[in-house]
Amino acid sequence: MNPVLIEVLRGATVESHHTGALAIVDTGGAVHTALGDIDRPVFPRSAVKLLQALPLVATGAANAVHLTDAELALACASHNGEPEHVATAAGVLGKLGLGVDALECGPQWPSREPVLRAMAARGELASSLHNNCSGKHSGFLCVACLMAQRLGVEPATFAHGYVDAEHPAMREVSAALSAATGQDVEQAPRGTDGCSIPTFALPLRALARAFARAGTGHGLPEGHARAARRLRQAVAAEPFMVAGTDRFDSRVMAVFGERLYCKIGAEGVFCAALPELGLGVALKIDDGAARAAEAAMAAVAQALLRTDHEVLRDYSHLELKNRRGLTVGALRPAFALS
Amino acid sequence: MNPVLIEVLRGATVESHHTGALAIVDTGGAVHTALGDIDRPVFPRSAVKLLQALPLVATGAANAVHLTDAELALACASHNGEPEHVATAAGVLGKLGLGVDALECGPQWPSREPVLRAMAARGELASSLHNNCSGKHSGFLCVACLMAQRLGVEPATFAHGYVDAEHPAMREVSAALSAATGQDVEQAPRGTDGCSIPTFALPLRALARAFARAGTGHGLPEGHARAARRLRQAVAAEPFMVAGTDRFDSRVMAVFGERLYCKIGAEGVFCAALPELGLGVALKIDDGAARAAEAAMAAVAQALLRTDHEVLRDYSHLELKNRRGLTVGALRPAFALS
Repeated sequence: MNPVLIEVLRGATVESHHTGALAIVDTGGAVHTALGDIDRPVFPRSAVKLLQALPLVATGAANAVHLTDAELALACASHNGEPEHVATAAGVLGKLGLGVDALECGPQWPSREPVLRAMAARGELASSLHNNCSGKHSGFLCVACLMAQRLGVEPATFAHGYVDAEHPAMREVSAALSAATGQDVEQAPRGTDGCSIPTFALPLRALARAFARAGTGHGLPEGHARAARRLRQAVAAEPFMVAGTDRFDSRVMAVFGERLYCKIGAEGVFCAALPELGLGVALKIDDGAARAAEAAMAAVAQALLRTDHEVLRDYSHLELKNRRGLTVGALRPAFALS
Repeated sequence: MNPVLIEVLRGATVESHHTGALAIVDTGGAVHTALGDIDRPVFPRSAVKLLQALPLVATGAANAVHLTDAELALACASHNGEPEHVATAAGVLGKLGLGVDALECGPQWPSREPVLRAMAARGELASSLHNNCSGKHSGFLCVACLMAQRLGVEPATFAHGYVDAEHPAMREVSAALSAATGQDVEQAPRGTDGCSIPTFALPLRALARAFARAGTGHGLPEGHARAARRLRQAVAAEPFMVAGTDRFDSRVMAVFGERLYCKIGAEGVFCAALPELGLGVALKIDDGAARAAEAAMAAVAQALLRTDHEVLRDYSHLELKNRRGLTVGALRPAFALS
């Protein structure tokens, strides 16, 4: 059993708790911190979107269509489907001469209540552009279209089916994951992600090292090292694009810029890179709770960056308020880093 | 550590899991099933709304204003804030001559996405009537108004502050909880619930016995035994009122009627009564996940009622679909009942 990482208090009583595992590793694989089982494979889900976007830059696809910082950041995003996100994804498709129907992520209503309400109040319907992965998928389409151009075939036809593991564009994505993690993802347990692309279960130890590498470039193929730097800079310049209003990743990276790259994934996964320390972080909450993944990552960032900035404390010690706005409880970390 | 009760699969791989504790107990306190620690106090939250509504019937307050089955069911509800729920709560307040501002539960947007969307599309704003607890609070106001009438004082003034633990109406509610559970709730760890009333942490063993008693009447004060029967009948007659569209409690009780009374609570608590078996059930998922509480309760009901009805299997083996509607995983119970 993994240790309790986060406790949820109501009044002075622990009402719930979240167990999980945490790995902090350097570029060479040396373990800075290991809590729980960091060798059991976990699906990293959207926490590895930066790694999945490496081919977008490394192949030259991003430059071929002159992607902006905002568009690159959106390629690494799990966004709220707010108007700026939707317009940016539509802009990338426009550069490719493709329509919304080229996206294979499926339609999604925003999961954040105020965003959903605003959209419904405007009379809008969910499309694939609102899908939190629409930026990532637009990036895949950039890669597929560049491949088609090089092969001299029709881009839209070639791009069709890009979510399939065997599609040439998706094979580039899987190869980038293998190179960064040092794991042959073809041999890993496989599932289908929420946006229909394959997701591969990998040890937290390998994921943390991959992000140490993505934060420093050390240990990555040269083209991927440059791509990782370009993507991190784009995200630091446009942090709203990677998540949105009131979201951890946007709020925290708006404060810490290139000092901290972080990305949450579904089912309680969180990955981060701390370039100045040469460290990568990967954690998984056993039960899949986002609130606990955020609290744990905030506590890790507080310790590693030696900061008590309120944007991190807001998450590590999240206050729970009731319907009248009364504080009725709080989250608190149940671990401490040396 | 409590055992794993529910596993979450993506493809063939366990992606997440939920630990928890489960008590199945008879009216005398004999344990039919105990998984994990059933003696640690847990906040039952909304899972004990039926017990909290006992004074509504037992004091005569429900009869004094001629509450219907729908209104009594709503007093036991954590509802979706759908138009029928809102209208029914408003109707109770109307019978008391009170306005929406008498409710002290606070405003709440519905948590179910389609319900929220429909409300936003209609241009509505959240009020205390939409709060999932508005029926319970309307019931508290019925008790407070009857007390005021008997004292010959102005009802609205007397009812003000009814959410406070020391208010005479709330003292009746706490006394009913103590009587049903056999625990002095005044001595229990206390927190403030989402709707601002006190919630008391009690052992699952005691909660399960309380529901065995509520399902049979055995071991309850006579007035409470009759009240429990009346409330269970009302819920069985109007199951939509206790939750709403696509909700476990409404769907399951619409099928099983008076054979199964069940009620979910926040943070992964679920309580149930099986009158024909003389058993009560109480479970808590350690991390607070509703999906796991529902899956576990469905598995318990399947075993105890010896049924493979699809409404229960839909929850115990919930299929997880992605944004394109592809099945990407499933929940499954990790325990079996003898």
